Amino acid sequence: MNESKRLKRSLLERLVRYCHFMQDKVLDEEITTVSSAQVAAYAELDESQVRKDLAAIGVRGTPRVGYRAADVVSTIRDRLGFDESYKAVLVGAGRLGGAIISYPGFAKYGLHIVAIVDSDPRKTGSMISGLVVQPMHRLGQIVRREQIELGILTVPRASAQVTADRLIDLEIKALWNFAPIWISVPDDVHVRNEHLSVGLADLAYHLSG
Amino acid sequence: MNESKRLKRSLLERLVRYCHFMQDKVLDEEITTVSSAQVAAYAELDESQVRKDLAAIGVRGTPRVGYRAADVVSTIRDRLGFDESYKAVLVGAGRLGGAIISYPGFAKYGLHIVAIVDSDPRKTGSMISGLVVQPMHRLGQIVRREQIELGILTVPRASAQVTADRLIDLEIKALWNFAPIWISVPDDVHVRNEHLSVGLADLAYHLSG
Repeated sequence: MNESKRLKRSLLERLVRYCHFMQDKVLDEEITTVSSAQVAAYAELDESQVRKDLAAIGVRGTPRVGYRAADVVSTIRDRLGFDESYKAVLVGAGRLGGAIISYPGFAKYGLHIVAIVDSDPRKTGSMISGLVVQPMHRLGQIVRREQIELGILTVPRASAQVTADRLIDLEIKALWNFAPIWISVPDDVHVRNEHLSVGLADLAYHLSG
Repeated sequence: MNESKRLKRSLLERLVRYCHFMQDKVLDEEITTVSSAQVAAYAELDESQVRKDLAAIGVRGTPRVGYRAADVVSTIRDRLGFDESYKAVLVGAGRLGGAIISYPGFAKYGLHIVAIVDSDPRKTGSMISGLVVQPMHRLGQIVRREQIELGILTVPRASAQVTADRLIDLEIKALWNFAPIWISVPDDVHVRNEHLSVGLADLAYHLSG
């Protein structure tokens, strides 16, 4: 896909919210159509923003009827690539790694964690969610054999960048970093830093008001 | 603080990144001044955005010298309320709860987890990070006695909204939700939903490109 055709991250995040609303609240209750006002109220946005966002991916509603929920869901899923399939390796078999691997939502977005590695010999050989924790020196073999595209980093802060560099060297396409550090990557690798401190800052700011 | 004076979430998140850059990279290396170009390169933003954001909180650089790193850090911390102190209760002593409570960054933002509760009698009485897991029926007592302002939800999806409602009833001021659902709150309660699916969607989208 051409870079100029890429959706902005903020739009992407709003589309995910619309998709959730449609899947979780609307389709569950066997409602087939929904108005932009309803979506806007759920997502805490202006109606005009909702209409603009959905138009941007080619979804148009019918006047006085609204949007067909099933159409919105399928268009968002298709546009965002959720129906394709990707393999991931999780590096770091600690508490956070365990929590992430047991998150039930991965398959819904096409992501499959197929291997776990850890540098601690006390952890290798143990089972987490049906996968055997493998030693760090197998990382290259695993990535090549399984054709893994995504690396999930749940290692301590001090080893996050060095682990990222190793995965980049193995030609991974994207990194999902949970260590409390912003890791640096070359332009052709996509990184998403899930930095708890952004959430903490947001909460501290609102509590101080 | 007046609602109209509130910083937008996107600005807040950028300020947190600037603050990190100054604290982690600049001050560690005993550099005292930094240019907007350096901050922009780190934060992957335009220089003009960096200057505008810092001006918005009253920080101005010196031509040909740049910003004093220590001033930027102290102004951001002060403006965002990181030097104040808040108490939190964590509800849900599973793997995710355990991972969050062991995150080292809380105190840096003034947040202190002072209690953990769980509805599972097999978990109550056990210790996590120096705190005894308490039964759910003590939640009200704990919140009142400790004057807790923040509730951290690491419960399963099915019990997230009901737990949130109970905390709101106990007059909690803010909720940090890690369950995979967007919880609804009244206008006077601040909620931050940390939804892994947004990250998943972002990654799936980039891998599909």
